[in-house]
Amino acid sequence: MPDLIVRLSSGRTSPVFFSPLAEVPDLMEACGLVRGKCLVVTDRRVGPLYGAALASGLSSRGWMPHVLSLPAGEHTKSAQHLGAIYDFALSTGIDRRTPLLALGGGVIGDVVGFAAATLLRGLPLVQLPTSLIAQVDSAIGGKTGINHSEGKNLIGAFHQPHLICADLSTLRSLPELEWSSGLAEVVKHALIADTGLLESLERHWPALMERQATVVRDTVIRAAAVKVAVVNEDEREASCRMILNFGHTFGHAIEREAGYGRFTHGEAVALGMRAALKVSHLLEPMLPLSRLMRLVSRLPVRHSLDSVDPAALHRAMYRDKKVRSGTLRLVLLRAPGEAYVTDRVTPEEIDTGWAAVCSPVKPTR
Amino acid sequence: MPDLIVRLSSGRTSPVFFSPLAEVPDLMEACGLVRGKCLVVTDRRVGPLYGAALASGLSSRGWMPHVLSLPAGEHTKSAQHLGAIYDFALSTGIDRRTPLLALGGGVIGDVVGFAAATLLRGLPLVQLPTSLIAQVDSAIGGKTGINHSEGKNLIGAFHQPHLICADLSTLRSLPELEWSSGLAEVVKHALIADTGLLESLERHWPALMERQATVVRDTVIRAAAVKVAVVNEDEREASCRMILNFGHTFGHAIEREAGYGRFTHGEAVALGMRAALKVSHLLEPMLPLSRLMRLVSRLPVRHSLDSVDPAALHRAMYRDKKVRSGTLRLVLLRAPGEAYVTDRVTPEEIDTGWAAVCSPVKPTR
Repeated sequence: MPDLIVRLSSGRTSPVFFSPLAEVPDLMEACGLVRGKCLVVTDRRVGPLYGAALASGLSSRGWMPHVLSLPAGEHTKSAQHLGAIYDFALSTGIDRRTPLLALGGGVIGDVVGFAAATLLRGLPLVQLPTSLIAQVDSAIGGKTGINHSEGKNLIGAFHQPHLICADLSTLRSLPELEWSSGLAEVVKHALIADTGLLESLERHWPALMERQATVVRDTVIRAAAVKVAVVNEDEREASCRMILNFGHTFGHAIEREAGYGRFTHGEAVALGMRAALKVSHLLEPMLPLSRLMRLVSRLPVRHSLDSVDPAALHRAMYRDKKVRSGTLRLVLLRAPGEAYVTDRVTPEEIDTGWAAVCSPVKPTR
Repeated sequence: MPDLIVRLSSGRTSPVFFSPLAEVPDLMEACGLVRGKCLVVTDRRVGPLYGAALASGLSSRGWMPHVLSLPAGEHTKSAQHLGAIYDFALSTGIDRRTPLLALGGGVIGDVVGFAAATLLRGLPLVQLPTSLIAQVDSAIGGKTGINHSEGKNLIGAFHQPHLICADLSTLRSLPELEWSSGLAEVVKHALIADTGLLESLERHWPALMERQATVVRDTVIRAAAVKVAVVNEDEREASCRMILNFGHTFGHAIEREAGYGRFTHGEAVALGMRAALKVSHLLEPMLPLSRLMRLVSRLPVRHSLDSVDPAALHRAMYRDKKVRSGTLRLVLLRAPGEAYVTDRVTPEEIDTGWAAVCSPVKPTR
């Protein structure tokens, strides 16, 4: 039985397992994938750790895995590396049943997912997320894509995985910065939809930071469940899926304005959540701002944006792809665990949000 | 009221109008598209004929059209020109409601459709097919994509248009070779699914070749209706949509083996249909081969393949993307207007099919 199940509007399901990578060949068969060729695409950080074991496990169960290893990092979400996956896949003689396995973090999941969406108009996709951000968020829900010089994720498609298998033990090898970036998404999920997770984070934060196995397992599955629940409500992001963008409209502006790579996605989201909490509180004074800011502040990332111009951030925000015909729609909190979408935030209120992250951080009470 | 309606599994519909391009702005509004920016992508043959009138019609109805003109020809279905559409679209500041209008033949429809499928994970698409092949086939059904050095249409997605508007008067400007290529698809639709159309073609062939307006209108709408009916049965080509590939598995092998551009798509399909009819007759001796071959022979295209090696064609066929794990699935006719899919054709039977097109044509009785 899967730990979580994404129910798609087509009637198909996308099962999510939190299981060791060694179980992937069995799970693939259980999900109806037909043994034969398969393509494993990974990156040069994750591949050396888990690629060989996965490939030999697949081989021993009758699969013929072909492994492609791409450079690690955000730059791999590019037309160039997408083209490399196309060339690799098509040169091996795939057919429409050949699965693509994305072994890695969010970058690999997005670019390999997009390749699977567009090769032969759609190949089966197996997401094997190895980063925290991918396990609780990006591997679930079918969003795939690459970046463009005009912005992140501007080219993409929805393509739901046949199977998602997140091996929690891979989180032990995650670099500190990526771990804390993932924690930002975990905090986001608690803030927008799960007060139980919020309390659990407040209570178990030190154990979580030490990556204690039981706390990690409970936290990751619970945070992933928020993503699954939102996707089940709204597969194509027509409305309620937008709440997952809490902090992201600010965050994307930071990444775009600062240049990709200067901030991790998680750092940008943490900063974006601070700004969004500030604006939320302006509109909803009963929101316990100090408590929520305190949780965000525990994220071990930078909490201020000294070297970026607030006016430039403001402008960058209005260029976000979520900006519909000039109207900025923002995700805010009405209460802990209760997000909503609004297009009634004034530019002045947004600037107050930016002020909360552009000035040096003052400790919240 | 649309002339034809594609009913999608999502519950959405894709209406097909055979109306003058001047009516496009009204139709767009009637289909729920929201006035604002829109992008018209065309090619350098069709653009000069119809682009300016379309753009000024859109402007006068409150749209802000941006027009991009790409080179004409199959080479435009490439990653390079797809990238040009991305750059153009993203530099104009589109949002998720900005429609892309594909004004042109099958190449423009496919590459612009794929851009619409993948920009911001999906923009509204308006197909404005100006070639016969696009009006009866490629603009309908949501198949989009580009070519790859390994083969045609290997990169793509399903993306259903919000609206299809085929202006029959544009067929008058169609070069002779493209007109006859399109007729090959019309004949295909008659052969696989519509004996009434078959008889009408036999009866009105000379008038059709002169492009007499009434015959063209009746023929094109009837041929397009076959495509609509098949798509309504099977939106994602799980099974019955495959019958549209009648002649195409042979035809793709010809195009691939001869090199793109040496044969038009329609020529390759005409040749492919001859081969497929021959194989059909081997398996179903009651099939009136002479009658059906006679209709195909009226297509004003080359009917033999002197300079291509039959053995190479045979091999190319087994590399087709429809070849599932090495099994060749072929579309054949059981009777006029009645196609079926089979994977039980032997390599020897396939070679007999190739022999029917690789030797000089003998007149059929």
